[in-house]
Amino acid sequence: MNSGEFRRRGKEMVDFVADYLEGIERRQVYPDVEPGYLRPLIPTTAPEEPDTFEDILNDVEKIIMPGAASPACTELETVMMDWLGKMLKLPEAFLAGQGGEGGGVIQGSASEATLVALLAARTKVVRRLQAASPGLTQGAIMEKLVAYSSDQAHSSVERAGLIGGVKLKAIPSDGKFAMRASALQEALERDKAEGLIPFFVVATLGTTSCCSFDNLLEVGPICNKEDMWLHIDAAYAGSSFICPEFRHLLNGVEFADSFNFNPHKWMLVNFDCSAMWVKKRTDLIGAFKLDPLYLKHGHQDSGLITDYRHWQLPLGRRFRSLKMWFVFRMYGVKGLQAYIRKHVQLAHEFERLVHQDPRFEVCAEVTLGLVCFRLKGSNKLNEDLLERINKAKKIHLVPCHLRDKFVLRFAICARTVEFAHVQWAWEHIRQLATDLLRAEKD
Amino acid sequence: MNSGEFRRRGKEMVDFVADYLEGIERRQVYPDVEPGYLRPLIPTTAPEEPDTFEDILNDVEKIIMPGAASPACTELETVMMDWLGKMLKLPEAFLAGQGGEGGGVIQGSASEATLVALLAARTKVVRRLQAASPGLTQGAIMEKLVAYSSDQAHSSVERAGLIGGVKLKAIPSDGKFAMRASALQEALERDKAEGLIPFFVVATLGTTSCCSFDNLLEVGPICNKEDMWLHIDAAYAGSSFICPEFRHLLNGVEFADSFNFNPHKWMLVNFDCSAMWVKKRTDLIGAFKLDPLYLKHGHQDSGLITDYRHWQLPLGRRFRSLKMWFVFRMYGVKGLQAYIRKHVQLAHEFERLVHQDPRFEVCAEVTLGLVCFRLKGSNKLNEDLLERINKAKKIHLVPCHLRDKFVLRFAICARTVEFAHVQWAWEHIRQLATDLLRAEKD
Repeated sequence: MNSGEFRRRGKEMVDFVADYLEGIERRQVYPDVEPGYLRPLIPTTAPEEPDTFEDILNDVEKIIMPGAASPACTELETVMMDWLGKMLKLPEAFLAGQGGEGGGVIQGSASEATLVALLAARTKVVRRLQAASPGLTQGAIMEKLVAYSSDQAHSSVERAGLIGGVKLKAIPSDGKFAMRASALQEALERDKAEGLIPFFVVATLGTTSCCSFDNLLEVGPICNKEDMWLHIDAAYAGSSFICPEFRHLLNGVEFADSFNFNPHKWMLVNFDCSAMWVKKRTDLIGAFKLDPLYLKHGHQDSGLITDYRHWQLPLGRRFRSLKMWFVFRMYGVKGLQAYIRKHVQLAHEFERLVHQDPRFEVCAEVTLGLVCFRLKGSNKLNEDLLERINKAKKIHLVPCHLRDKFVLRFAICARTVEFAHVQWAWEHIRQLATDLLRAEKD
Repeated sequence: MNSGEFRRRGKEMVDFVADYLEGIERRQVYPDVEPGYLRPLIPTTAPEEPDTFEDILNDVEKIIMPGAASPACTELETVMMDWLGKMLKLPEAFLAGQGGEGGGVIQGSASEATLVALLAARTKVVRRLQAASPGLTQGAIMEKLVAYSSDQAHSSVERAGLIGGVKLKAIPSDGKFAMRASALQEALERDKAEGLIPFFVVATLGTTSCCSFDNLLEVGPICNKEDMWLHIDAAYAGSSFICPEFRHLLNGVEFADSFNFNPHKWMLVNFDCSAMWVKKRTDLIGAFKLDPLYLKHGHQDSGLITDYRHWQLPLGRRFRSLKMWFVFRMYGVKGLQAYIRKHVQLAHEFERLVHQDPRFEVCAEVTLGLVCFRLKGSNKLNEDLLERINKAKKIHLVPCHLRDKFVLRFAICARTVEFAHVQWAWEHIRQLATDLLRAEKD
């Protein structure tokens, strides 16, 4: 949508809201629809080609408004998470469908999703061990629980361990910054020998530092064999899996208990919108469910409805699935795929430019929209270059450490980025590098 | 703002966004301002009288846009939380000010705020006990930790205990559904005698069921003496404390470590916006702080800036303080006070109507906008009445249990509610009651 159409459609939406408020006394306070009303009214998959804005807005009036906030808010979320799961070709077990045991939920951020998964896993293992040894207290079990992630995992994983009150250990990644079977197996054996109880593994697809991928096909079977919950954090990379040529990066998801990525990062859905799926929704509900009378409702025990408040940390919820519905329909799957492909292509263009200048090196494989690079030379030199780049305020780069190397990260992420921007940014970086190297010499 | 002005202003905002997007390449990627730039640019307190929309929008361009997302997002939040704290006459210790140790943060919901407080308290007590006895493990301590709330507290408090992995005990409330010193003291003595470690108390101001108030002036000193963290959950009632005639309900807040209420509930700020203050922000930061390189920034250790990601569960943040800024300025403190007073007055009108019909009884003191009432008679009778009311779909009531009584709750909460609506609703309820009693007789 260009800004001209945005002006027109945005103003129509303002009138839509004002009309609603003016006519609110003529509306019913409680909807007439029955639980499950929404799914039959909309397609089972996202459209391949874009829908028109008129069609979408007509559907809001026809499909959402009669369902009011509840159950429309819940039911659209379930169906949108099924749409998105199908776009990613997630295994059937993660979808809610008509009678599945899995399903998706929108969380606020990947850090929340990791924490929710860890807490569900913690509850599950505590109950399992207590069922086997009724004398065991929760405290005695928690003291022995241990979770794992790669040393490249996001800091929010460590934080989830801290909040959940369990140990979290970092598994040394391999030469390509991936968690592999051998290192995980080694840690498991050592910890079990010490009487600890391994219960939870976070595998990252597309790490923050360099967009590396843990080896799911190796790690997954170990988790299943050892009865450890496997959570996959694909916060950034997940969006790319809607393209068939990147879908192989998700192979092994079938071993996971939960999977999460952020459509707000790279799929044009405004912040916040973090998409999380579980294979067994009873595992989540088991961890958080409490039912006081003032939160009871007539359909509580019908099995027909989803109570998302049991799937997350806060109780309150916003109607975030509307954002997904609008974006999926306005772009169509093909439009979203084209958007991802363009960013990946631009990252490769940048990589090519870096390779052409012998003063620079590329520091990690470029798979998606991130290029890790640096000046050949000391960390100090690269820290100085970063400072010059960020002080010039023309572009902004965020660095990382890869082993002992200080590395610059060029991330393609703006909605309207074109090759000319990338080219301009590279010339700017080269010029600042030239200035820096000259100053160093003097 | 009426719907006519909403149409005009809403469309201006759409143009504001489109203009921004069209001109984005002329803007700098990183702001020129230094940390702390914002506070001197805006008043130290909320305006008493409404500002014009033009003034507010001009300030967005002048004050927010040069500060971009960061640091404007953080700094406006700190200042808005100070404004709001002053509106409530919170003790100075809870305000950030220029060099205070306390401060406010926007959470998503009161349930999140309770959990954050519990986790901070847990970290604090674990560290204190480990400092005294270095051999103690976290697991051994956590097994003995015990938290308390009234038996009238919201279910999210019990849920916070579940997530935090600690025991939570319900203190029997008194005849007015308030937690009192004697019952708390009794539980403490019993638990300490059993070797447990009391560490956390949630006091509720304005309970969900009947809007009762725990006795802060009794409970507070006990918490301080016993070195227990006191968290106050005033999710609904908190908004009323901006009126001098209701401020006494907050007396005793000076004993608390953290305080929370939801401006999204009763202060015209759209969901979600839950306002939480702490006396010592280092207590929160201590519980959650982790600093990987990709989240580091130049001002990290200057002490000048607030990193709200250490104050909450998720890492990502939205710019929610803009909602507060707009609402406080568009209504002025007087406008917000008038809004609260009108609702309370309408609740008393409803109470008066209930008293006039001898078939009904009022079941709890009406302090703010909630009236608990029922037909004199069995719970079954009242369950049937509720079913008739909610099936008619003209109004919607949510029930509760007060001790063994099934009670209906009439809550004044719509933005545009008038006495005519209340009167109409009461006539409707009476008519359904008459129908029900006639049917019972037949």
